[in-house]
Amino acid sequence: MEISLLLAAAAAIAFALLQRMDIQRMPVEDARIREIGGSIREGAMAYLRRQYAVLAVFVVVVAGILWLLLGLGRAAALAFLAGAVLSAVAGFCGMRAAVSANMRTAQAAGQGLAPAFRAAFCGGSVMGLMVVGLGALGIGGVYLLNPGHPEVLTGFSLGASSIALFCRVGGGIYTKAADVGADLVGKVEAGIPEDDPRNPAVIADNVGDNVGDVAGMGSDLFESYVGCLVSALLLSVAWGGEEALAYVFGLAAAGILASVFGIFLVKTIRSEDAQLSLNTGTYLSAILLVGAAFFLGGLLAEGLRTFAAVVSGIAAGLLVGRLTEHYTSHRYRAVKEIASACGTGAATGILSGLSCGMLSTVWPVLVLAEAILAAYHFCGAFGIALAAVGMLATVGMVVSVDAYGPVADNAGGIAEMSGQPAEVRAVTDHLDAVGNTTAAIGKGFSIGSAALTALALFASYAGAAGLTAINILDPRVMAGLLAGGMLPFLFSALTISSVSRAANRMIDEVRRQLREFPGILAGSQRPDYARCVDISTQAAIREMALPGMVAILSPAAVGLFFGKEALAGLLAGATVTGVLLAIMMANAGGAWDNAKKSIEEGAGGGKGSQAHKAAVIGDTVGDPLKDTAGPSINILIKLMSMVALVIAPLL
Amino acid sequence: MEISLLLAAAAAIAFALLQRMDIQRMPVEDARIREIGGSIREGAMAYLRRQYAVLAVFVVVVAGILWLLLGLGRAAALAFLAGAVLSAVAGFCGMRAAVSANMRTAQAAGQGLAPAFRAAFCGGSVMGLMVVGLGALGIGGVYLLNPGHPEVLTGFSLGASSIALFCRVGGGIYTKAADVGADLVGKVEAGIPEDDPRNPAVIADNVGDNVGDVAGMGSDLFESYVGCLVSALLLSVAWGGEEALAYVFGLAAAGILASVFGIFLVKTIRSEDAQLSLNTGTYLSAILLVGAAFFLGGLLAEGLRTFAAVVSGIAAGLLVGRLTEHYTSHRYRAVKEIASACGTGAATGILSGLSCGMLSTVWPVLVLAEAILAAYHFCGAFGIALAAVGMLATVGMVVSVDAYGPVADNAGGIAEMSGQPAEVRAVTDHLDAVGNTTAAIGKGFSIGSAALTALALFASYAGAAGLTAINILDPRVMAGLLAGGMLPFLFSALTISSVSRAANRMIDEVRRQLREFPGILAGSQRPDYARCVDISTQAAIREMALPGMVAILSPAAVGLFFGKEALAGLLAGATVTGVLLAIMMANAGGAWDNAKKSIEEGAGGGKGSQAHKAAVIGDTVGDPLKDTAGPSINILIKLMSMVALVIAPLL
Repeated sequence: MEISLLLAAAAAIAFALLQRMDIQRMPVEDARIREIGGSIREGAMAYLRRQYAVLAVFVVVVAGILWLLLGLGRAAALAFLAGAVLSAVAGFCGMRAAVSANMRTAQAAGQGLAPAFRAAFCGGSVMGLMVVGLGALGIGGVYLLNPGHPEVLTGFSLGASSIALFCRVGGGIYTKAADVGADLVGKVEAGIPEDDPRNPAVIADNVGDNVGDVAGMGSDLFESYVGCLVSALLLSVAWGGEEALAYVFGLAAAGILASVFGIFLVKTIRSEDAQLSLNTGTYLSAILLVGAAFFLGGLLAEGLRTFAAVVSGIAAGLLVGRLTEHYTSHRYRAVKEIASACGTGAATGILSGLSCGMLSTVWPVLVLAEAILAAYHFCGAFGIALAAVGMLATVGMVVSVDAYGPVADNAGGIAEMSGQPAEVRAVTDHLDAVGNTTAAIGKGFSIGSAALTALALFASYAGAAGLTAINILDPRVMAGLLAGGMLPFLFSALTISSVSRAANRMIDEVRRQLREFPGILAGSQRPDYARCVDISTQAAIREMALPGMVAILSPAAVGLFFGKEALAGLLAGATVTGVLLAIMMANAGGAWDNAKKSIEEGAGGGKGSQAHKAAVIGDTVGDPLKDTAGPSINILIKLMSMVALVIAPLL
Repeated sequence: MEISLLLAAAAAIAFALLQRMDIQRMPVEDARIREIGGSIREGAMAYLRRQYAVLAVFVVVVAGILWLLLGLGRAAALAFLAGAVLSAVAGFCGMRAAVSANMRTAQAAGQGLAPAFRAAFCGGSVMGLMVVGLGALGIGGVYLLNPGHPEVLTGFSLGASSIALFCRVGGGIYTKAADVGADLVGKVEAGIPEDDPRNPAVIADNVGDNVGDVAGMGSDLFESYVGCLVSALLLSVAWGGEEALAYVFGLAAAGILASVFGIFLVKTIRSEDAQLSLNTGTYLSAILLVGAAFFLGGLLAEGLRTFAAVVSGIAAGLLVGRLTEHYTSHRYRAVKEIASACGTGAATGILSGLSCGMLSTVWPVLVLAEAILAAYHFCGAFGIALAAVGMLATVGMVVSVDAYGPVADNAGGIAEMSGQPAEVRAVTDHLDAVGNTTAAIGKGFSIGSAALTALALFASYAGAAGLTAINILDPRVMAGLLAGGMLPFLFSALTISSVSRAANRMIDEVRRQLREFPGILAGSQRPDYARCVDISTQAAIREMALPGMVAILSPAAVGLFFGKEALAGLLAGATVTGVLLAIMMANAGGAWDNAKKSIEEGAGGGKGSQAHKAAVIGDTVGDPLKDTAGPSINILIKLMSMVALVIAPLL
């Protein structure tokens, strides 16, 4: 059974290698493209190296604590190391492929839409395939070495969570510090356009897309993927014995193959309609998974029940993604209202976006609540884990589509900076626009899957801690609920002010360069890109420490000092407000972004109008909400549950 | 026992009448003051009359539903009517006193600080005394007529909640529609100062202060006061029999007398330091209450335990208020940081305020959690209700201080509009500044007491519905938690967009008047104030319907269709996210407001600077958050629990 998963993992990794070779084979003839692409690659890899150097120390220390202080056993400590290493390797390979593919996409854009799309998607797919490949390899491998002991897998999952915490939070801070810094000084003060090579922070901004939206996003979904599989394996035996365990392994294997098929399909369609290709691949892999879930269910005594639970997760995943689009796409009413509110000024634009973000929580939360009720109805707590697995089994496809976005975005930046002709930039602009839509859907999916994963881990924690009921009338649970509900607010406040601090440093540096070297704005002098890259890198690594400690220490402290009931309340409270805040911030940010774009395209005044200025303020407010604070909450709620699950035996 | 409460209530009402007569005795010699004050009074009373006319229909229909459809008995339906009527009467008397006192304060300001302060506080104290007087009268009276049946009191409490819902939501929409409309056109577009009589919306703006901050706030705390007393009475018998019931009545009576003493003290000190007088009164009444709680506890078998629970509530109330000041006063770091962030632009100012608001949830929530743990430790679920009673027993004093603020604010507006000399305006400005501090503290107190009241009602609901445990692992509870957590987001989105819609209508009207009658800006023509008052009135009454329905129907629907466990989850989720969102919005709004003021006083550029423009945007964003959406959530969480408690026997 774990063998099936290992074989599928091997297939995914092999396909990733093929895709990687494909990318390398694509030529980069233009010297300017090669130079700029090279700077982005260097910056991105330098960041990752420094981040991993810090994390290596952290991971070894935590492994020691787990083994020696908490007495969790050597196997769990080793599994923890494996989880951390594999997540890091997945991030490294995925980002390396992305920073190779971005310049090749810019180059291929000279030959038309289809080859450019192929290059960008190829780049994104390596991240997707490595996430599922290495995630499944780790889970299958750890179980193979510790047969009959799924609890050892919690160590692996915690390792993945630790990396995700720092990659997502650090990546989010990196990308927005660079983005806000580049925009506020470059666009607003100096009046130069986006992606102008005269802006000293422009390379850091492009590096940020990779660091945040490729590596950060990948580590987030790596964690969700591993977390939901581990909790499903933990809950399976109690529900249906070895057979149910085998079902989970088989379902995960089928999901990987479905993703591989989907990715292969997108690659070979060679259609001119990028959006259609991506949608076809996504839906095909979902359909394949539904078929596999049905077929595998036939081998079980209670097959139809498990099938129904899995399908409720798949449906919820697709629905939550679509709902996100409804609130963040310029084609729908919400964004149009924000754009028109910007006409009365920045304050009304901000209020309209905030209220859109709040309103956008309604349906996704009801969908999730319905999925929980359905999944539980069919298979109890195991059903919730199965729904999460259903949502996440084809994450290889989802991450490929998600990571395509920043590659296309970078390609646009490179084309702009290297002075490509207008028709080339038109191609990259189109690919970028498709990427924006997929990014919004991907964000909804990340939150939805994080919520289900956190709830599945929560159920596993309750089992591991021997809690048969978590009674809200118990004052410890009630106090825990309140305190837990507060944590996502605290966490968001910390990450938002981290971005502000880092952005301020970036602003100072960009201003300094433009002031001290007037040749930069004149175009006769090359700005010091590396200095800006360095500022973002340092800031991200320094600023991720405090939120990271909050995420790890608060569940540990509450569990150890106030008991397992209070910890259960804490987890429930954090999950509830976390999901809501994350959806609100992601959608408000996305809606402001698209309101700005629709004004730029002519609605309500166009560039330079008062409405546009108001919309730029909205967009700048939304940036750290949607790309730093919101995604970081996904990690917070999963990691807190993971920490609780790991320390449950001690409580 | 209920007799002691009735006697105390009578004392409070008698004192209120004396205060009212005192106000009437103060002269208003200046004809301009009388004219402008008269317009404000007319507008305020017209609003209240129209709102009550709508509510009368609503209340009679609901009473009919309760009696005939839900079969709750004639006594409960009559108690419901009594609760609604007494809350309405308290609001009417309190607001009438406030709109009489505002012009007298403006007049008295000519004779110095002390007489002006005395007039303003006198005006506010009528609201405070009527809230506790009529609240206690109702509870004592209903219990006297239905001895041994505290459950009939839930009808009374629901009546109070219904009025509170519409007064708080409608009042919040009224005041901010007028305020935003007056500011955006008057200050920003036409460039005339605040409270300039040439602004057509200026009377509506001043009416709004009374409608929102006097009547709305009073009905909110009337609801909290009644709600916590009712839940304490409901839970008392199970905990300690008749003796405990008598303790609650006695404590409430002592609290009223403590408030009366405190108010009397503030009135007679005749100090020049308004802030010191108010603080002295507040602390004196708290100390008297502590003494009474100790003394009354001596009559009980478990007296020290009840005393400890009461004290935990009193302490939490004072602490939450102080913490609010920490995040919203210009003397502390948070506001200074926002003011300096405004220097980089509106976006950074907004982000800084948002993150300050989020951060400001941390300590109040931990204080509340600690109070719950302590109160429960001493007296179980009854302890939570006792803590709420401890917090709210001296609400007569708290409301008096709160309502003093808008009276002083109005007096400043009247002095400005009637062209009083600078030294008069200096007096009113000083009183207004003191009012701003007390308003921020009062907001923190309202939220904290709403949270404890909602939790006490929640515990009462669990008892009434026969739930001995509310298990989060039960999927209905989990789904309920998620859906409930969403409701404060939905509710906030609805109220914020109500304000936007209403403000837009106001903006159109003000622009129309200024355009069609150029004499207005020249000062030769009187604007049509009544038209603007009318627009706010209509908008408030129309816009309060949808959020009101959400608050009433969602618990009823979830309870009837998904069962009492799902409803319990819904209440818990709504309370947790409600408290957090309310604190965040109130404090972010207060912090932006004071950041703007500190910039106006010279920090970082002064009036007209870029930083000031950014701060004005922050303030405008914060206005509906702190004065409409945030306070409305207080009502939402209490009312949902009340509805649940009332329908519990049907589930």
